[in-house]
Amino acid sequence: MAVRGYTMEKAELGVRLRKIEGQVRGLQRMVDDDAYCIDVITQVGSVCGALQSVAVGLLDQHVRHCVMDAAASPNGDGDRRVDEATRAIERLLKL
Amino acid sequence: MAVRGYTMEKAELGVRLRKIEGQVRGLQRMVDDDAYCIDVITQVGSVCGALQSVAVGLLDQHVRHCVMDAAASPNGDGDRRVDEATRAIERLLKL
Amino acid sequence: MAVRGYTMEKAELGVRLRKIEGQVRGLQRMVDDDAYCIDVITQVGSVCGALQSVAVGLLDQHVRHCVMDAAASPNGDGDRRVDEATRAIERLLKL
Amino acid sequence: MAVRGYTMEKAELGVRLRKIEGQVRGLQRMVDDDAYCIDVITQVGSVCGALQSVAVGLLDQHVRHCVMDAAASPNGDGDRRVDEATRAIERLLKL
Repeated sequence: MAVRGYTMEKAELGVRLRKIEGQVRGLQRMVDDDAYCIDVITQVGSVCGALQSVAVGLLDQHVRHCVMDAAASPNGDGDRRVDEATRAIERLLKL
Repeated sequence: MAVRGYTMEKAELGVRLRKIEGQVRGLQRMVDDDAYCIDVITQVGSVCGALQSVAVGLLDQHVRHCVMDAAASPNGDGDRRVDEATRAIERLLKL
Repeated sequence: MAVRGYTMEKAELGVRLRKIEGQVRGLQRMVDDDAYCIDVITQVGSVCGALQSVAVGLLDQHVRHCVMDAAASPNGDGDRRVDEATRAIERLLKL
Repeated sequence: MAVRGYTMEKAELGVRLRKIEGQVRGLQRMVDDDAYCIDVITQVGSVCGALQSVAVGLLDQHVRHCVMDAAASPNGDGDRRVDEATRAIERLLKL
């Protein structure tokens, strides 16, 4: 069941990333068409938010797996993987 | 030992928050003294980073407890607490 | 009139920063009272947003002065001050 | 000369956005190849930073034009355009 969940998640990630790729191409068209720069900036903020949502989705999945794996094998490497999650959050927040 | 760790963490959080409070008072002095606004902005960024580090420290602790508790009692409420962690990250990233 | 505007702005900045100082003390109380860490994180995000609003207010003022000064003396140091504003934005976004 | 500068800027923006589009496709490949999620998150942060740099570049250009135009015609619409810049910064910071 975890595998199935992972597969779905992967498909959804693909859909989201293809949409983001389309949004980046949309930004290129805006620049080509001399769109008002304030509108381009607003759209950049929106694409960035979409990317960060993808990152949070991956982080959620990572932490959930840490918890599931700890329940299955209490002496696993949960600590190291929590360290990784924390450093990933720091990078997202640019700390 | 977990309790002891928690106590230390709490003391460290207190130290960090008191330092941040001092930094906010420093910002007030800068404004009172007509400091150059660009310098005030730079300092605001630094205080904000210090606050976000506190939040990431709390998040790390929260996730670590989720993993430890899952190892101790596999049928606990790990899923709900991971949901909370994810929503907290979303709020920090303002998603 | 510009002076008056600046004075008001300074008073408002003081009010906002004192409120933020109070919020940071509130965070300390939350930690002292063992508040649920997710609630502390949410509140940290809110204080950080308040600080960033102060920074944006200062940036708005800075840019507005650049524009006013350029209108008054077209051969001033507008370019250098726009450079400073841009670097300040980069620091706020941690680029 | 301003036109020429704008043209260059536009070409550079195009280059940067095409590079970002390539990075987003790289993210898709990472997900397809089951890359470690922490590595994907790190790369998302990097793409997001590249997008925000594009936005800051546009903002710098916008403010610079406000200042140049104010120097050329002191009674222009500088105030309204500074308002727009400030709101754009707020959106980038998600305030």
